[in-house]
Amino acid sequence: MDIHDLTRDLQVQNDSKIVMLVADGIGGLPVELGGPTELEAAATPNLDALASRGVQAASIPVLPGISPGSGPGHLGLFGYDPLQYKIGRGALEATGIGFELQENDVAIRCNFCTLDEQGNISDRRAGRISSEESVPLVEKLRAIEIPDIEIFVEPVKEYRFVVVFRGADLGDQIDDTDPQATGVPPLEPTANHPDSEKTVEVAKEFLRQARELLADQPKANFHTMRGFAAKPNLATYQEVYGLKAAAIAVYPMYKGLARLVGMDIIGQPQTLTEQVELLKEHWDDYDFFFVHFKYTDSTGEDGDFEGKQKRIEELDAAIPNIEALNPEVLLVTGDHSTPSYLRSHSWHPVPTLLVSDCCRPDGQTAFNESTCIHGGLGQLEAKYLMTLSLANAGRLGKYGA
Amino acid sequence: MDIHDLTRDLQVQNDSKIVMLVADGIGGLPVELGGPTELEAAATPNLDALASRGVQAASIPVLPGISPGSGPGHLGLFGYDPLQYKIGRGALEATGIGFELQENDVAIRCNFCTLDEQGNISDRRAGRISSEESVPLVEKLRAIEIPDIEIFVEPVKEYRFVVVFRGADLGDQIDDTDPQATGVPPLEPTANHPDSEKTVEVAKEFLRQARELLADQPKANFHTMRGFAAKPNLATYQEVYGLKAAAIAVYPMYKGLARLVGMDIIGQPQTLTEQVELLKEHWDDYDFFFVHFKYTDSTGEDGDFEGKQKRIEELDAAIPNIEALNPEVLLVTGDHSTPSYLRSHSWHPVPTLLVSDCCRPDGQTAFNESTCIHGGLGQLEAKYLMTLSLANAGRLGKYGA
Repeated sequence: MDIHDLTRDLQVQNDSKIVMLVADGIGGLPVELGGPTELEAAATPNLDALASRGVQAASIPVLPGISPGSGPGHLGLFGYDPLQYKIGRGALEATGIGFELQENDVAIRCNFCTLDEQGNISDRRAGRISSEESVPLVEKLRAIEIPDIEIFVEPVKEYRFVVVFRGADLGDQIDDTDPQATGVPPLEPTANHPDSEKTVEVAKEFLRQARELLADQPKANFHTMRGFAAKPNLATYQEVYGLKAAAIAVYPMYKGLARLVGMDIIGQPQTLTEQVELLKEHWDDYDFFFVHFKYTDSTGEDGDFEGKQKRIEELDAAIPNIEALNPEVLLVTGDHSTPSYLRSHSWHPVPTLLVSDCCRPDGQTAFNESTCIHGGLGQLEAKYLMTLSLANAGRLGKYGA
Repeated sequence: MDIHDLTRDLQVQNDSKIVMLVADGIGGLPVELGGPTELEAAATPNLDALASRGVQAASIPVLPGISPGSGPGHLGLFGYDPLQYKIGRGALEATGIGFELQENDVAIRCNFCTLDEQGNISDRRAGRISSEESVPLVEKLRAIEIPDIEIFVEPVKEYRFVVVFRGADLGDQIDDTDPQATGVPPLEPTANHPDSEKTVEVAKEFLRQARELLADQPKANFHTMRGFAAKPNLATYQEVYGLKAAAIAVYPMYKGLARLVGMDIIGQPQTLTEQVELLKEHWDDYDFFFVHFKYTDSTGEDGDFEGKQKRIEELDAAIPNIEALNPEVLLVTGDHSTPSYLRSHSWHPVPTLLVSDCCRPDGQTAFNESTCIHGGLGQLEAKYLMTLSLANAGRLGKYGA
């Protein structure tokens, strides 16, 4: 069952506003037995006050025990079942650098690599060359021309870059050319499906020209291709929810993910304050706003408990300015937990708070990992947060008579 | 979606140890309103101390309201969705007596029965003859020979025994021959699928010879055949989780269930103390240990509240010796509840406790039916306990980028 079959049928139009404030990786862990998590250690008077009016959930990003990447984490929050809808690696990489994928595109993650004199890979990452060294090489590859194919070559970071082929009849069912080993030659692109034969020919020609262009390089004298992926076929927020939606994010990855579900991208904010300003400016233009706060995740990944705590306090300070806009539904959540103790995304349920005039408050007076497990929404798969938000906004009609 | 598609992709190797301590049927009920359950009445200082470091769940064996047998109960704990994976009745009966099923086997539950002079069944259980009476008859049936088929005839208990046919091309889609009524003749074996025609012929020949061999018996002069079942096709722990797994159990049924998912069976322990000794001895040999404690179930089935309480205290006393081994993950759970009040397996959520250094403790300081419903893992289908255990052991990578 696709939840969107329900939301397509039941969606109702009104003037309500929904704000989804995503504190990336907000969930955490204590670093000592009986100690607080980052969120519990932080002073969050505004979130706690909000908790008294709201209802909490311990939100499960995918399934118990499964730690999601940013792609599946956000698809879940957006109400697209992350086990059903997938974003191919190449498409996610392109999305992450702000490349706007179109219907006829196939995106590919590429690594510069080093070939020895026999043509075998001696370094799968070309000595991890810096961005300074790789960007000119990426630009060099832009000279490659293939008839009837538009080609984009974009730097990512260090030895990584993205290639996008744009043209008719390009399938994406193609194996990686990275043999995941050294001392052997790169693999030839091979199609897993007849629809992808044309892409194989294009990729082979690209690799042939690239080998010539890079031949005189000491380290990055070739590259591999991985994660061939077309633009994922995701129905838009307008279609599945009847929502005109906007994303206010600092980082390209989150703008890209929002764009994949049909959200407009607003402005080029650099801080949360600027994000809230943009929210205010565009308040009348949209029904739904996705506001993404990155730093609760990046501090967690750095293992910086106090840094994460401070970033949570920064988030808390922004709450009154969002509340002042009187959204019908304010949802505060994260796409996953990023405990500084683990320095990585984790599977732990995410503290989640939904506030509306009809949310049935659960008596909690604080907002954190300990309170959310006693919240009125229980343990909840993240994919249901959109149906709950729509319901609380009066935007979902009755199912069945 | 099969969870194992995820765990196959995401499994990570490390040196961690996971111990799953299954107290069979541990969940109970109060016998009077406001009274304690067996687990609440028991003195469990070690489990309670563990609770302070762990996170609890109210584990749902199959689905709310569904009371599982031992087969589905354990499949759930092992992370094999008990609604998706099934162990046929004959295969479970063979497993329960310690018979090691092979790929070419079909196992059949048989009941001795009494036929009257017209060949109609007058007693479907042959007067419930004792094991003393039936074992010689089972041995008599071992004289049966069928070309190209290896035949095993094994006693179970009283009027029950198991027949296993071993040979090529034996399907198991065959109807029971027990008409579930007296005054009518046994049914002929009938195939539901063309693949099972050969087994039908084998079964008919077996029944023909059995009728001759038993003809002079006063009570058990024939037998019925039920639950034809091949060895269930379950991928191994090694394959789906990357775990080298061992089972330490007293009873054949639980050894058999563990063997079906590829666990090694360690030793021939007779007591929990011996089981914990074996755990210690083999600590370096395996990644995962399934330790099965039977008596919380058998006392429950006897309606023996105090007996179950004492068995729980015996379990509690074993905890420090398990903790002393410092497993990265210690999971204490049951395959279902067996309230002495009901004298049977039940559907009630099972108190479940997971302890690891990154489990996010939930503030509970005791372990029982009343605390588990406020646990940090919420109400949880048992099939997710393995993904959670793997995650807590650092053995699951990130899903998606």
